[in-house]
Amino acid sequence: MTLSAIEIDHLKQAHTIEGVLPVIAGRWSARSFADREVSPADLAKVFEAARWSASAYNDQPWRFLVGRRGSSTYKKIFSTLGGFNRDWAGVAPVLILGAASATFSHNGSANAYALYDLGAAAAALTLQASALGLRSHSMAGFDHAAARQLFQIPDDYHLGAVIALGYQGEPSALVQENLIALETTPRTRKPLSEFVLEEWGTSVDLG
Amino acid sequence: MTLSAIEIDHLKQAHTIEGVLPVIAGRWSARSFADREVSPADLAKVFEAARWSASAYNDQPWRFLVGRRGSSTYKKIFSTLGGFNRDWAGVAPVLILGAASATFSHNGSANAYALYDLGAAAAALTLQASALGLRSHSMAGFDHAAARQLFQIPDDYHLGAVIALGYQGEPSALVQENLIALETTPRTRKPLSEFVLEEWGTSVDLG
Repeated sequence: MTLSAIEIDHLKQAHTIEGVLPVIAGRWSARSFADREVSPADLAKVFEAARWSASAYNDQPWRFLVGRRGSSTYKKIFSTLGGFNRDWAGVAPVLILGAASATFSHNGSANAYALYDLGAAAAALTLQASALGLRSHSMAGFDHAAARQLFQIPDDYHLGAVIALGYQGEPSALVQENLIALETTPRTRKPLSEFVLEEWGTSVDLG
Repeated sequence: MTLSAIEIDHLKQAHTIEGVLPVIAGRWSARSFADREVSPADLAKVFEAARWSASAYNDQPWRFLVGRRGSSTYKKIFSTLGGFNRDWAGVAPVLILGAASATFSHNGSANAYALYDLGAAAAALTLQASALGLRSHSMAGFDHAAARQLFQIPDDYHLGAVIALGYQGEPSALVQENLIALETTPRTRKPLSEFVLEEWGTSVDLG
């Protein structure tokens, strides 16, 4: 079965309500990437989106190691990925490793919001990517110790996710049947009643 | 000096490049809120935006305690705020406290991405709010232990930020001169060269 990027996007569209930003309803985590580079101008846009995120004390604790396919940065990030992610991520033209300073730059004290703020910046990055017609996929499955060692990341930085970035590819090019199925399966989420709460364990009525 | 919401938004607009999503360039952290309620329909949209965020194993670890002004939930969240935040946040019509499950629901193992994923969901929430003409402000400054105790939040949940949500108010209504100044000061961020890296300490050239 051959599916166009438009058909796949339709399958992956969030079943949500009117008024939700199209870029939020349309973002999903692709695994099939086309053999097409991401321009430096578009990369600048996705990192500008991250740049303007909010952070505790405006510390902007996020750092992103960015590798384009063929570069040593890319090879190092790829080498840390778990087996399941290796089966597809090596086609993506860009791999990004996020990290966050665990201490505030203004006074050196611990920043309990480092990972929270990194996650926020990464979310803006992936939404901006989606607005540019790019696909992304954030991965928790990689060897943190190896990544730290390969890039000599200081101990006072937390590691975030590895993000694959590129253009939608043809799902049938994926090497594993189960990955092809995942690429076209509708996205699912818990209902609001499970996480929008008035008290712990009691839902808010938004009816 | 009286400023309209449009004039304030102009002052707060990110100095960024063309192609960055308007909702990303335009979101900022307000402290002056109007005496105007947020409709349940708009609240549903902001939480739908959070709902469709990505998360490790699609665990969706985020939980949001949501209080509307006058409610006991609101009073409890407000009571945990630090002094600086108390000076302005009590005018916001909605206060939200984020939390994240520290363990995966599918197997009970530790989720190192709980706060990262909560931060991502909260970012989507604030961007959606901005798209609806709402303002938000995320606060790290609150008493975590008190919040845990007041809502009986289990130990295996991390706490995220408290988010104030509402419509832009008149900055001159803020009680402190320094808050009025903050409300109209342009936003600043580090340049990309400080956080978009090829190697640790070496910037990527994005031309």
